[in-house]
Amino acid sequence: MKLYFATSNRHKYEEARRVLSEYGVELVQLTSVPKLEIQGESLADIALNAARTAYLRLGEPLIVEDAGLYIEALKGFPGPYSSYVYKTLGCRGILRLLEDEERREAYFESAVAAIIPPYEEVFVARVHGVIAAEPRGEGGFGFDPIFIPRGEARTFAEMGVEEKNRLSHRARALRMLGEWLRSRKIKRAQL
Amino acid sequence: MKLYFATSNRHKYEEARRVLSEYGVELVQLTSVPKLEIQGESLADIALNAARTAYLRLGEPLIVEDAGLYIEALKGFPGPYSSYVYKTLGCRGILRLLEDEERREAYFESAVAAIIPPYEEVFVARVHGVIAAEPRGEGGFGFDPIFIPRGEARTFAEMGVEEKNRLSHRARALRMLGEWLRSRKIKRAQL
Repeated sequence: MKLYFATSNRHKYEEARRVLSEYGVELVQLTSVPKLEIQGESLADIALNAARTAYLRLGEPLIVEDAGLYIEALKGFPGPYSSYVYKTLGCRGILRLLEDEERREAYFESAVAAIIPPYEEVFVARVHGVIAAEPRGEGGFGFDPIFIPRGEARTFAEMGVEEKNRLSHRARALRMLGEWLRSRKIKRAQL
Repeated sequence: MKLYFATSNRHKYEEARRVLSEYGVELVQLTSVPKLEIQGESLADIALNAARTAYLRLGEPLIVEDAGLYIEALKGFPGPYSSYVYKTLGCRGILRLLEDEERREAYFESAVAAIIPPYEEVFVARVHGVIAAEPRGEGGFGFDPIFIPRGEARTFAEMGVEEKNRLSHRARALRMLGEWLRSRKIKRAQL
């Protein structure tokens, strides 16, 4: 079954493509559809609104994913604005805000919104961990070099795609979508 | 003439009420209409979208104002997300990000969107200045304690409302609205 993924982020697409291929989904990257993102506290709302807007333009089954890093000592910052904060402050800015801070707990959240008429679904997953003292690793993207998932010693950026996909918030949310597609027996014919 | 101002910020309303009273506008605070804010780079777009959404609910002439603090050394951060960043990081977070930074230039921008059928207008104004070394003053709100407008030695928070209104981005944008109303001779009858 073919499904569009509205994202301009090549890394994100590559992660998602691999996960969904396990469910027989052929994911196609769609970079040309502008997503209208609302400002809001909830990634689920942001992703669903963006997916609806994209669907109005495309008219084909698609998903949109939005993710955020929520840092406890910073009251959840950068949260839903992680992408903007990454572009302006980067990993260094986050580490600066956490200097001399002992509470390093954080989580990544991912919301995957799927518009597959007549269905509209959002799948949300989190991965808990801590913020590293220094950026480490060359893999992944965004804040991956400073996030160490619980039970691990390495950051997401020190892992390969397959390994990150065993643990990550995004892979978990995408697997929820995969299971849902499977349970609904949604096949190419319906798409 | 009566005009609604969709904002839950009492300080913002008070500043705006005073400015617009000079133009014969009776400004009424409207706290109950939810504003749908988009994520975007431009405050003008954010304010206009929010005003349209509010107008669909209210059906009466109204304004929405959105403001942001743009810091040069931080690539414009916090910009359109200033309100969220104020709630999470506060003035202290901004100062921390600027530790040992000599470039202190910043500007406040305000976008006032007015829906006064059949008109839809957005007025944008800026005030340039620098980020203070420490928060100072008890007046104003938000990042006012760390912003020193150009040509002044005091922060916005060290000024009274009248004085801040002589200089501020918001007062300037509101005066543009006031002049526009005057030039169009928009009176109560039309509202």
